[in-house]
Order: sequence, then C-alpha cells, then structure tokens
Amino acid sequence: MKKLSDFTYGIVGLGLMGGSLAKAIRASVLAVPSAMGSILGYDVNQASLEMAKQQHVVDEVFATDTVDAMLSRCDFVYICLYPHATVDFLKAHKAAFKTGAIVSDISGVKALLFTNMEAIIRPDVDFIPGHPMAGNEREGYACSSGDIFKRHNYIVMPLPQTKPENLELFKQLVTLLGFTRIVETDARVHDHKIAFTSQLCHVIASALVDSAEDTEVTAFGGGSFEDLTRIAMINAPLWTELFLANREELLSHIDCFERSLARLKEDIAGQDAADLEVYLEAVRKKRVAMSRIDSRA
Amino acid sequence: MKKLSDFTYGIVGLGLMGGSLAKAIRASVLAVPSAMGSILGYDVNQASLEMAKQQHVVDEVFATDTVDAMLSRCDFVYICLYPHATVDFLKAHKAAFKTGAIVSDISGVKALLFTNMEAIIRPDVDFIPGHPMAGNEREGYACSSGDIFKRHNYIVMPLPQTKPENLELFKQLVTLLGFTRIVETDARVHDHKIAFTSQLCHVIASALVDSAEDTEVTAFGGGSFEDLTRIAMINAPLWTELFLANREELLSHIDCFERSLARLKEDIAGQDAADLEVYLEAVRKKRVAMSRIDSRA
Repeated sequence: MKKLSDFTYGIVGLGLMGGSLAKAIRASVLAVPSAMGSILGYDVNQASLEMAKQQHVVDEVFATDTVDAMLSRCDFVYICLYPHATVDFLKAHKAAFKTGAIVSDISGVKALLFTNMEAIIRPDVDFIPGHPMAGNEREGYACSSGDIFKRHNYIVMPLPQTKPENLELFKQLVTLLGFTRIVETDARVHDHKIAFTSQLCHVIASALVDSAEDTEVTAFGGGSFEDLTRIAMINAPLWTELFLANREELLSHIDCFERSLARLKEDIAGQDAADLEVYLEAVRKKRVAMSRIDSRA
Repeated sequence: MKKLSDFTYGIVGLGLMGGSLAKAIRASVLAVPSAMGSILGYDVNQASLEMAKQQHVVDEVFATDTVDAMLSRCDFVYICLYPHATVDFLKAHKAAFKTGAIVSDISGVKALLFTNMEAIIRPDVDFIPGHPMAGNEREGYACSSGDIFKRHNYIVMPLPQTKPENLELFKQLVTLLGFTRIVETDARVHDHKIAFTSQLCHVIASALVDSAEDTEVTAFGGGSFEDLTRIAMINAPLWTELFLANREELLSHIDCFERSLARLKEDIAGQDAADLEVYLEAVRKKRVAMSRIDSRA
C-alpha cells in the first residue's frame, strides 16, 4: 500500500490556494523531505517560486521549460490554476505525468473538465477532480496559509475508473490538511450546488456593494453589510471566469433568488405584516436548521 | 456638572439590547450602587426581571403598575423596546419622567418617533434619540451581554433643543459602554442609511435563505453562504415592524440593488467577460475603500 509520507508532491500554481496547500502538506504530511517524499513547485511567477523555496515550503522549483520533468517524478499532482488554465495545462502536459500518479485540481467549475475528459486524462493516471471549499479574498503566494482549510468542506468527484485505494489516499490527504467534511458527488451536482453556495453569494455581495451610494455608508452599519460583502473584495478575472463557465446554473439560481426577493418586496410594499412575519419566521427556522448541520457553526 | 456615576439609570425593557445595555452600564459606569447612583429595571417579563436582579445587573425591578415610580427617580432612561412600543411607552408615561432627565431609545427606525415628537416629549425632559449599531441574532435577557458593543458605531440624533451638556454626557456614556464611533445626524439621514446597511441586508439574507432548495446545501459551502445569511436567523416580529416602518426608504434601496443585480445578470447571460471584469474590479475597489474606513475591519 502506498503511503502519503513517501509521495513526491507536485504543486502546479503557487498562488493563494496552491501555496496554502503546499504549506499544509509541509506542515501535516511531509515535515521534511525524506528519501522517498518531497514537495515540488511550479509557477510562472519567479518571485513566488523563490519565496516558497526559501521558506522550505517546497523542496525544488520548476519553470515552464522544466515542468514536464517535475510532473514525471510526482506521485501526486495538485493543479491549482484557474478553470480554463487547468484544462489547458492538463491537455498540454498530458504526456508528462508519471504512470500511476494521482492528479487532482481545485477548479470551482467542473463542467469544463468533464466535457474535455477524453483530451485530458490518460488511462494510467488517476485523475480525481476535487474542490476544496476554502479560501479568502486575498490573492497570491504571499497571502497563502496552511491554516485556511481547518473545519472546511471538500467536494470530491471520483470518476468511474478511479481506483478505490487512490480515492482512499486522497481522502486521507485532505483530512490531514484540515478538512472535516468530504462530500462525494459528481460534476453536475457540484456545479449546481456551488452555483448557489458560492457563485450566487459572490454575485449578491457584488451587486450590494455596487448599489451602495458611497463608501462612507459603513459609518451607519452594525456589521451586517460588512459580513454580507466581505467576499466582494473579489478577484475579478477569476470570478469572471467562474461565473461564465457555470452561467446556466448560476442564472437559474439568480432567477430563484430574484423571485424570493420579489415576494418579500411585495409584502413590504403592500404592508402585509402577517405574510411578512410568516415569511421571516420560515426563513429563521430554515437557517437555524442549516446551522445545526453546519459543522463549522 | 452632572456625573454619570451619580446617575440613577432606568432601563425600560430588559431584552437582548436592554439587558446588554444594563450589563455594560453595570460593568463600566456603576460597578456597585452608590449613595447617588443605581440601575433600575422594568420589563413585562417577570423572569427577566428576577434574573437581572439576582445577577446584580439591576438594583431594583419594576412592573407595569410601578414603572411610573421608577421613571420619576431616573436621571437617565433607556427605552429598549420595539419601534411602535417605544412611541406608545413614551406617550403613555410622558408625565412620569423626572424633570431634567435624559431619555434615549434604541429604535431602528426614527420616522415614527419624529412624527410623534409633540406627543412624546416634555420641554423639561431631554430626549436624545439614538441607535446603537450592535446586536445579534439572539433574543431576550438570557442572551444579553455587556460585551456586544465594543468597537461598534452609535448613531445619535440630537434635537434642536438638546442641551449641549446632556449630549456630552450621552456621548461619554456610550463611549464607556464600548462604542468607538459616534455619528451625529438627523432622523431622515438615519432612516435612509439604515435602510441600506441594516434593513436591505436583512431582506437580502432572508431572500437568499428562502431561495435555498434544501437545508443540506451548506455541505457544499465554503462559508460564504453562512456569512451572508447569519442575520437571517431573524426576529420575525421585530423585523416585520422595522421593514414596514421604514418601507419607503427600504423599497428604494431594494430597487437600487435589483438594478445592480440585473446588470450583473445581463453580463453573465450575455457572456460579456470584459464588462463583467470591469464591474467586479470596480466593486472590489469600492469594498476595499469601505473596509479602510471601517474601524472594526
């Protein structure tokens, strides 16, 4: 049986997420490089590579012209790129992966990957798509931290051909990284659910900030506006890509939300106190039920 | 010059807010009842009164048939009731207040008070409307805490006849209670701003919870949905009253938000990546500017 501490890990993209994953692997799986195991890092940004190397977060660094050599040595490759770049990278470097390697990604929309599956996987490489449900409004390696995964959810979408022992290793790994709930599903369910819990929330937060009449309005706030809009400190290129790549699911959730909002607005405009109270009481009960099953509440 | 530590305080309504204010006054202004100062409490709920008395949060308790006797002794009265109940209480007990007393309220909508001002104030009582911008999704005295005000905003709306020395005492008091930013404005501006920072946020959070297809969806979340909807664990009767009492301001903010959302939706549906990125980048900059001036960020 393969052991996580004997693996050579390859992190493709040392941004906020890749950097954080590398740091968490270093802290919890592979404290020092061993005869068997090590952490290798690739990024187009030379400064990120140097910082990661200097901090002993990765043991060796690779640039675009050497990344195939890195991939050929890795037992586990984490692709930590934007959604389209993930597909492009997997296609371009398909031949370089080591036979038997486990490969995973962190892309927030999976339809892109699943519609390109033929072009990106090799039968002798175990690609296990996944989505770590953690992150924050910061960007880049300098902001990465191995602690951002604690008590968070991980969504994993094994393929029909995924080897059970590799799926088991994958789950062991993300548990060591701090994730406490692993949800197994498929790409369609993932994209549908994520369009609600993540993309719709970012859309709403962004529209709320857009609708603010000035930037001084928080002097009148008690924290609600701040809580609702922290995620509006958004990485514009990344979220543009996520919104568009999952637009059908997202648009259907926006429609749903607009209908819920319209009903509330109608009650307020019509001064229907009775219906308003019923609506709000139902919302309170629903949200309380959600917080009971939220392990991080 | 009057001193806050010599005051007799009367708290009308020992719920989450009244209880928290009483506890903060006890902790920071009047640690023990003195020859001059004490804290008196009134509520319709006998259990809340007993708990507050037993915990030495208040020194004496009063019921509906004795509250006028309490009011006649108080140098500072905090009316901690729902908006309509605040107006009703002030009207009903207008004659009972002590000459020279400072009276304040915590109502989240001020138009109600200001349109009833003739009926609720006496020339020899200094009514200083205010709004502590703090609180949480819990309810009742048992959930109250003197610590919820730290680093929060306080909105104060002095009247033309407010005595400068009383306004000064009021500001000293709320500073002792933990509030760090005191915003002076009038009722119109308050209701307009609060409709955005507070009521619109509660409307959006409620509509978002309403639009969730089930209560298990948070298994797919990374925390965004939870952050956006914590305030949807809402006190339905209170917020029904707040939404309706401020409905014109609130409806105008909902319209504005709907327009911002519609533009975002149009970009997504039309796959206009360029405009979407411009929109999100502008939102990011605006929200970052807001967090720079938010003292609690």
